Amino acid sequence: MNLLKERIIKDGKVREGRILKVDSFLNHQMDIRLLNEIGKEFKKRFQGEKVDKILTIEASGIGIAAVASQYFDYAPVVFAKKTESLNIDNDLYKSPVHSYTKNKTYNVMVSKSFIKENEKILIIDDFLASGCAACGLIDIATQAKAEVIGVGIVIEKGFQGGREAINNLGVKVESLAIVDKMEEDRVYFK
Amino acid sequence: MNLLKERIIKDGKVREGRILKVDSFLNHQMDIRLLNEIGKEFKKRFQGEKVDKILTIEASGIGIAAVASQYFDYAPVVFAKKTESLNIDNDLYKSPVHSYTKNKTYNVMVSKSFIKENEKILIIDDFLASGCAACGLIDIATQAKAEVIGVGIVIEKGFQGGREAINNLGVKVESLAIVDKMEEDRVYFK
Repeated sequence: MNLLKERIIKDGKVREGRILKVDSFLNHQMDIRLLNEIGKEFKKRFQGEKVDKILTIEASGIGIAAVASQYFDYAPVVFAKKTESLNIDNDLYKSPVHSYTKNKTYNVMVSKSFIKENEKILIIDDFLASGCAACGLIDIATQAKAEVIGVGIVIEKGFQGGREAINNLGVKVESLAIVDKMEEDRVYFK
Repeated sequence: MNLLKERIIKDGKVREGRILKVDSFLNHQMDIRLLNEIGKEFKKRFQGEKVDKILTIEASGIGIAAVASQYFDYAPVVFAKKTESLNIDNDLYKSPVHSYTKNKTYNVMVSKSFIKENEKILIIDDFLASGCAACGLIDIATQAKAEVIGVGIVIEKGFQGGREAINNLGVKVESLAIVDKMEEDRVYFK
């Protein structure tokens, strides 16, 4: 998706530890016009697929998934939570996920009410690196006996094994920009 | 907003400790058609106001603000974060907020790059109870010397003082449903 790649080149920042910062348009400040283009592109990539529900994970996936839903006939969006609160049920699917950017392991959690047997689930997230978050969401869908029709990613770091981890679970990945290599202030795409 | 009140009556659940659960359509699973109606209603409530940016807080505010932005000429949405990570700058505005549903105090944080002097800010969130979160966001906007043109809330608990706390800061509140009283399995609106 050229519009996205151009935006990453223009506004993305490479930081130590192979961090690609896109917080000016994707995951802290969000450009909602761009999110609409991203939603349209996901629809193209999953053309012909029935999607009953979009599953994502707080916080950065939520805005992307909410806008994308409009291109999938307003499929309900469920976002997995990372912390327990009085606002969610005790009856939860859980899967442990390690975050490299936050350097800790936590459970991702989804109320059992919101993922049902045989539902066709599209997983959407902002980044794919090692694939931990996406694999956690696939695990939750599998616990619910739902069917994951694919994983849609905005930016994939193509050198951290996430795609392989997801494909090994029999799930297809569509990424709108795949980063091949990062150098100081320079991003190369596949 | 009748559509919203009807939905709360139909799908909301009252839980012990004055908790109103609306996780089947608002803050765990999200009904994106309803979020579009909510966005339109916010636009009506703030008709004629210039909005440069929408400010919200992770996680539940994000989907609401992202969809609402489409009715405010695609104003960029900034979501305040509750935890530090390698993905955000060190150069942050911070304000301490207490969460009753999570029973802890944390800093809400916004990168200094994304709120500028004199910008007109609309704050959007899912719930207003004691007003802690909204007041934290107003504090951040004030630190940045931006102007908060108002606070748009989906559901206000009208008996927990949040409106007064925000009005005391000189900011107007528009809530789409104001809960007056909750009993077991029954919600009364103002």
